[in-house]
Amino acid sequence: MTQTASNTGTPPGEGGESDGAEDSVVMEDTLAPLLLRRVGIDTYHENVAYLHRDCAHYRAEGFQALSKLEVRANGHRILASLNVVDDPAIVACHQLGLSEDAFKALGEAEGQPVSISQAEPPASIPALHRKIAGERLSREDFNNIIRDIAELRYSKIELTAFLVACSQGELDREEVFYLSDAMSRIGRQLDWHEHPVVDKHCIGGIPGNRTSMLVVPIVAAHGLLCPKTSSRAITSPSGTADTMEVLAKVDLPFDELEEIVRTHRGCLAWGGTSELSPADDVLIAVERPLYLDSPGQMVASILSKKVAAGSTHLLLDIPMGPHAKVRTMAEARRLRKLFEFVAGRMGLVLDVVVTDGSQPIGRGIGPVLEARDVMRVLTHHPDAPNDLRQKALRLAGRMLEFDPDVRGGDGFGIARDILDSGRALEKMQAIIRAQGEMPFDLDDPPLAPHSFDVMAPKAGVVTAIDNLKLARIARLAGAPRPAGAGVDLLTRIGDTVEVGQPLYRVYAAYHAELAFAHQSCERDNGFSIGRADEITRPNVEF
Amino acid sequence: MTQTASNTGTPPGEGGESDGAEDSVVMEDTLAPLLLRRVGIDTYHENVAYLHRDCAHYRAEGFQALSKLEVRANGHRILASLNVVDDPAIVACHQLGLSEDAFKALGEAEGQPVSISQAEPPASIPALHRKIAGERLSREDFNNIIRDIAELRYSKIELTAFLVACSQGELDREEVFYLSDAMSRIGRQLDWHEHPVVDKHCIGGIPGNRTSMLVVPIVAAHGLLCPKTSSRAITSPSGTADTMEVLAKVDLPFDELEEIVRTHRGCLAWGGTSELSPADDVLIAVERPLYLDSPGQMVASILSKKVAAGSTHLLLDIPMGPHAKVRTMAEARRLRKLFEFVAGRMGLVLDVVVTDGSQPIGRGIGPVLEARDVMRVLTHHPDAPNDLRQKALRLAGRMLEFDPDVRGGDGFGIARDILDSGRALEKMQAIIRAQGEMPFDLDDPPLAPHSFDVMAPKAGVVTAIDNLKLARIARLAGAPRPAGAGVDLLTRIGDTVEVGQPLYRVYAAYHAELAFAHQSCERDNGFSIGRADEITRPNVEF
Repeated sequence: MTQTASNTGTPPGEGGESDGAEDSVVMEDTLAPLLLRRVGIDTYHENVAYLHRDCAHYRAEGFQALSKLEVRANGHRILASLNVVDDPAIVACHQLGLSEDAFKALGEAEGQPVSISQAEPPASIPALHRKIAGERLSREDFNNIIRDIAELRYSKIELTAFLVACSQGELDREEVFYLSDAMSRIGRQLDWHEHPVVDKHCIGGIPGNRTSMLVVPIVAAHGLLCPKTSSRAITSPSGTADTMEVLAKVDLPFDELEEIVRTHRGCLAWGGTSELSPADDVLIAVERPLYLDSPGQMVASILSKKVAAGSTHLLLDIPMGPHAKVRTMAEARRLRKLFEFVAGRMGLVLDVVVTDGSQPIGRGIGPVLEARDVMRVLTHHPDAPNDLRQKALRLAGRMLEFDPDVRGGDGFGIARDILDSGRALEKMQAIIRAQGEMPFDLDDPPLAPHSFDVMAPKAGVVTAIDNLKLARIARLAGAPRPAGAGVDLLTRIGDTVEVGQPLYRVYAAYHAELAFAHQSCERDNGFSIGRADEITRPNVEF
Repeated sequence: MTQTASNTGTPPGEGGESDGAEDSVVMEDTLAPLLLRRVGIDTYHENVAYLHRDCAHYRAEGFQALSKLEVRANGHRILASLNVVDDPAIVACHQLGLSEDAFKALGEAEGQPVSISQAEPPASIPALHRKIAGERLSREDFNNIIRDIAELRYSKIELTAFLVACSQGELDREEVFYLSDAMSRIGRQLDWHEHPVVDKHCIGGIPGNRTSMLVVPIVAAHGLLCPKTSSRAITSPSGTADTMEVLAKVDLPFDELEEIVRTHRGCLAWGGTSELSPADDVLIAVERPLYLDSPGQMVASILSKKVAAGSTHLLLDIPMGPHAKVRTMAEARRLRKLFEFVAGRMGLVLDVVVTDGSQPIGRGIGPVLEARDVMRVLTHHPDAPNDLRQKALRLAGRMLEFDPDVRGGDGFGIARDILDSGRALEKMQAIIRAQGEMPFDLDDPPLAPHSFDVMAPKAGVVTAIDNLKLARIARLAGAPRPAGAGVDLLTRIGDTVEVGQPLYRVYAAYHAELAFAHQSCERDNGFSIGRADEITRPNVEF
């Protein structure tokens, strides 16, 4: 058997003064520190570190692809997933590369010396494993998991495991509350120092449906504080922020928006939503590509943002229809109860409406087309889509009834007066000016230059419109960027059409996009044509 | 409202001959094709595509970070997850970058024109969603999912969702069979044209435990065909392939190994295991960083490889102990029944032994140290570890009883005769020579140059050894690469030790590694010292 070296039994890396001894073990001297390099890859809410395969540190620690590193510099530390690199142009042997997210999270300059080690898994991983095994987690468990997630300590793999372990039927409603509450407490929390602070939210899935841009001016004109948190489209053809951007700036600093809300009682932009419930944004980055939309996650995502934004009252819109997220009244009721339970535990007053989600709301799908619809309703244009007007008035009416001085049942009438008197338009113009007006000519909206019409392949009555399909066509045509792309509906459910009559028009800025959208329409244009008695309208409460 | 363009109603992208018309829509001309670029990043069993943020194709289609692309060139097509790049040195605006895995999968040269489109999700994703929702999947579902996985059509996120949805308690035993069977049928399948074809497998978790390198020569010397599939370490300090590589070449072409097996009745290397049940390797890339090890996945992983390798008979070793994968006899029995059920459905004869997993088997942990132990047993060296010898003889004896000509109960005696007569050593030397002998001096094995001893902090009896902890220390010290690194046990459970007496010795090639291992030992050296009556040895069947 070999002789052990002279240092046998002496603790290496401690008291490092044992110079001269050939085999003395000193931690620092053997491997030169790595130098930090920013790698221009957007890894989308995941910290990724890049090490060259021949890097002495990589070889020494036997890191595996996908194992996690702890990266330290100047007292800062982050966890990052590891990608091994073979090209010194991306990272050289003496460098540690960090993806954009990770570089920002570490907050150090390029060229700084950094040290790395194999990371212990985040502290909440044992709780994650208990959830995978089907156990019920405690409030403390959810707090720990959500903190680790918000601090980007989870890899994409771990995030997915958490989401799937918490998916359908795996969380009881108390756990959904723990999750929502934990999410709302991480990140910025606003306090408006008044009561009520109202907001509305739709669970999504219906193209067009830009009611917020009518509801907010109406409610704010009445005097209620309505700091609407709105977002950009992630997988849809437009979000409220994208549509509003056709009319006004939306990327405003937090403080400026706060001031606008205080002055005008409302806004239609929120640059800072990622600071509210930041764990939500991290989880969404995994939910979307997985098409995962479990009730528990939906409730936690929506309510955590609203509570963090300082809302005290929320009107929730659940559209129901054969091509909506919610397809039956039984399902809508179950979801409503879960929202009600969790909102109650969080101290949020909640009103839920189940609405007709059988087809898009308004005519346009895409930022410019939707902005056109909204401004037509506000200006009483003859082509204003009546379904959008009616829905917005009903929602605004319900929100006005959050005002203790409004009698139950009077909200709709008050909302209609505010809209018809021009006060809603006035308020909208004030908000637009405050945020920073963009030029917009309602008589000549800046639509994308190319278009084609989709024709009825046979005569009959439009019996159904597939929301998801229409959204996808608008998306393929380029919406939300460029803003002028999208779909303009020329017919609706119940309309009688002739063979070759245009059903809708698709706008795109580029030929390639027009072609993508056209191919998709050729496969399935999303419209069903048949007999009037085949139409099934959902029997909604609202 | 704007005038629609002149091509309204004409199908774009079809019949592309409509030249002259200003707005004619032709798919190809507007965006120049992207040129393929190989990006030297190892994304470890995931296809990743890199597009520059300002790439016209990226902007045009509105791809999102993490959405999936279909990449086409010369009739080949792959799916890849998208990373957005801001650095033209990684990919320029006119290029499509592919990670090493993806580049290899597409099989085209750099600079080739490629086209991309937003990919439809893999066809089996609806089945994945049904599994997430808690439904039971059909045989067809598993076939489709496993085919998509083997062809790298799943992203890491989708793989994780599948694993978690199939984790503890989520698969019934019929589904585990469907999964195992589907995995075994994708990839290469060997047929040795004789019967029986025997193999052994240990579910893992016990450091050292290099019994295969004794069992294979014994069984092959008896004449049974034993094409042992063995692997390299992924998270452990050594796999059989790593240890065997100290003695012989292991990265041999498939055909050469096949020939060695036919000539010598066995081998101890398998370069081609990734061709057998390839979906298993893809799934493992996610299981490991998640520390997920569900019974269903374990059964499918092991049995699919064995069946694909052409084995007809398998001896399965389930080590049980307080720091082993299986901790109680009840758990071991449940696992055994599941293995038995699935093996039966797959037509594989299975014999299961539950063994003592309370501490490492043999003295060495790490390739060179383990190779030393194996060769000491084969050569009857006075320091040969008796536990390794005894366990190997018992396993080999059970395998020999797969031979219809061996009487039940006679196997152990035959195995011992083969070992003690030197026939096992002879067979091992023949296999080593056939694979390509590496120089190895048993009297002076090539251990790593640096070392330290871990001392008993108090007097008493060694009552427990933490397998996981010892494996981690060996790993931190560098094992399996360099091969000479690792841990050499100097005491075992039941030994009486004095204060300061060495418990084990850690070998490392670099000072930094020695320091990492030492720090880990300082926190917890993995040994428990107490009174003899505190020792609990598992009451195993074997």
